[in-house]
Amino acid sequence: MSAIVDVGLTRFQKKREENVVALAAAAYKPLLRHAEKIDFVIVANSYSGELNLVSGINNHFTSHVSLDKVRSLRADNISGSGGTAIFMADTLIKAKVAQTVLVIGVEKMSDKNTAENAEIISTLLTERERESGVTLPSLAALMAKSYMQEYNADREAIAWVAVKSHKNGSLNQYAHYQKETSIQQVMNSAIVADPLRAFEYSPISDGAAALLITSNENAIKFTPKPVFIKAIGFAADTSHLTFRDDFTSIEAVREAGKMAYSMANVKPKDIGFAELHDMATILEIVQSEDLQLFDRGQGWHCARDGTTAIDGQMPINTSGGLISKGHPIGASGVAQATEAFFQIRGEAGARQVKSNKLGLSISLAGFGNNATVIVYGDSE
Amino acid sequence: MSAIVDVGLTRFQKKREENVVALAAAAYKPLLRHAEKIDFVIVANSYSGELNLVSGINNHFTSHVSLDKVRSLRADNISGSGGTAIFMADTLIKAKVAQTVLVIGVEKMSDKNTAENAEIISTLLTERERESGVTLPSLAALMAKSYMQEYNADREAIAWVAVKSHKNGSLNQYAHYQKETSIQQVMNSAIVADPLRAFEYSPISDGAAALLITSNENAIKFTPKPVFIKAIGFAADTSHLTFRDDFTSIEAVREAGKMAYSMANVKPKDIGFAELHDMATILEIVQSEDLQLFDRGQGWHCARDGTTAIDGQMPINTSGGLISKGHPIGASGVAQATEAFFQIRGEAGARQVKSNKLGLSISLAGFGNNATVIVYGDSE
Repeated sequence: MSAIVDVGLTRFQKKREENVVALAAAAYKPLLRHAEKIDFVIVANSYSGELNLVSGINNHFTSHVSLDKVRSLRADNISGSGGTAIFMADTLIKAKVAQTVLVIGVEKMSDKNTAENAEIISTLLTERERESGVTLPSLAALMAKSYMQEYNADREAIAWVAVKSHKNGSLNQYAHYQKETSIQQVMNSAIVADPLRAFEYSPISDGAAALLITSNENAIKFTPKPVFIKAIGFAADTSHLTFRDDFTSIEAVREAGKMAYSMANVKPKDIGFAELHDMATILEIVQSEDLQLFDRGQGWHCARDGTTAIDGQMPINTSGGLISKGHPIGASGVAQATEAFFQIRGEAGARQVKSNKLGLSISLAGFGNNATVIVYGDSE
Repeated sequence: MSAIVDVGLTRFQKKREENVVALAAAAYKPLLRHAEKIDFVIVANSYSGELNLVSGINNHFTSHVSLDKVRSLRADNISGSGGTAIFMADTLIKAKVAQTVLVIGVEKMSDKNTAENAEIISTLLTERERESGVTLPSLAALMAKSYMQEYNADREAIAWVAVKSHKNGSLNQYAHYQKETSIQQVMNSAIVADPLRAFEYSPISDGAAALLITSNENAIKFTPKPVFIKAIGFAADTSHLTFRDDFTSIEAVREAGKMAYSMANVKPKDIGFAELHDMATILEIVQSEDLQLFDRGQGWHCARDGTTAIDGQMPINTSGGLISKGHPIGASGVAQATEAFFQIRGEAGARQVKSNKLGLSISLAGFGNNATVIVYGDSE
């Protein structure tokens, strides 16, 4: 496997001034000192063509930052692009095709307005479902309804995920929202798709994140404290939501999780913290169960009762998650790895968890079309 | 390394009826019988968002063809996407992360008109150059002028590349243009960017191509005649054309070529046939020299004097090349590999070359931002 030896991050924001290429470069800036070591660049990005009128963004980026002679590509898996890019970087290193890979995740969404963004993102849905009026927010709402019915879950308890995430975000200088919010504010925010409300969804953001990944053997040359990628599970499921058996669980997440635990030879209870793909509150809950961090039907308690808080028994989305940190599509999965990097190195400041030897992240394509689960650790 | 064990291809055409996902599926159709063996899918595609309002095309594709449980991603490197996707497939196999990878190259350009396509493709150029009015056709024209001046090359000799390519295309049932053309027709076609004329450029096409790639050890289970990927060179250069030293040569091609020859342990003179990235006539000539198939300044003779004909000493673009076969961006590099597959297996029919033990292809991103050179052979 491989190790993360350095990271870079821009603040995720509603509107950043740089163009999408310069935004990617801003995340890379702290890694400039490693430039000569980089022998491959993967740019995780989905929508630079549609949003920013830029194609071949990997080539634009390498030329912009004077990595002209370094091979590159764009890895796209919609909202799961970040995890997929890390998977491909790890694969390049495993195959000894590259030694040190720069992974950049970037999306600049503010070049379009909210309606345009929604329209563009909806193109990931199958035609039949899109035409019948399905949207990603409405799928999350449907999942919330199914979950509440199945497990007799309390509506407000689900909304507590947003309260917890905003609290964490308030401690993260890179987060889109850096303000705490109350349960009343969440429950009084506008309904987006019944029963879920505006504060329960990730916002549209601009942002970029960067990772320097190298072989385990090589890692020590960069830092005395590498963060090791112990396993990457990667699994897929149908994009036709109507073909899925169960709407309170995501098969791709379950399978990718099992694969990752098995590869890393760890148990769910060993995990010290997790960055989940909380495009909406309910998704954090469902994923926490799919990854066996909690028993089936028990996840909904865990934000309200403090279990998933930074000082709780199983801290989830210490970064603020997609809901509070923001969700610039291509950047999200890469930024999760930066949070794991900070936590495992003990550099997460006010967000620091105690049980920081082993963490995981999940990067989700679409509504579970595929998923990568990465296990990070302080040892190989 | 790895081996190609089966291929699929749609005809490249001005307008195909299927949508972009169904078009990809059409290329996959002959490979359906291998479905259970496929454990990874890479879709080479650049512009499905801009051209077809489809994102996450890899997920759409896997669900469309019932490969729902197979992991996938979209690999994008603009016009070089096909070669990059093959490189990544080979890497997955080398790393033993996958055993049998389906590579699909696809682009459906006819959903937009010619002006819209030109506008979309121009987004691969750096902003400064695009704003100064540079286009890919004008860069090819500039290259032609520089080359003619440097090597005192005959204008008509360059145009003969198109005559040769159309002749080859007339023998290829998958080609966009399947009609021979005369030197007079080429020289009388409209000037696109002086001195180059319409028949000297690749057309805008719809099309898809598919490869089944597996490990060398595994290949024999699929076919007694695998086509081995002996080497893949991959090199990059600045996207800022104005920063390049020489406009009669492409550094990324030279470097990727050297790398491929060295990895495959072959010499340029061992190569039996080549599929080059002839976005314009002059590019075939320059690449043939950059790959040392001909001496510097000698490539321009070779179409007119028959050297690069199917029965010539060094057949180039037996498929018809991008000029005659067509250039659906994401599909082109993948389709080149299908031609190598047919040639090496002796299945190229009227296009069959005699020296078919060793072939190469070059997939070019942009105007040489990066390039992959693949060496194919009948043995490991």
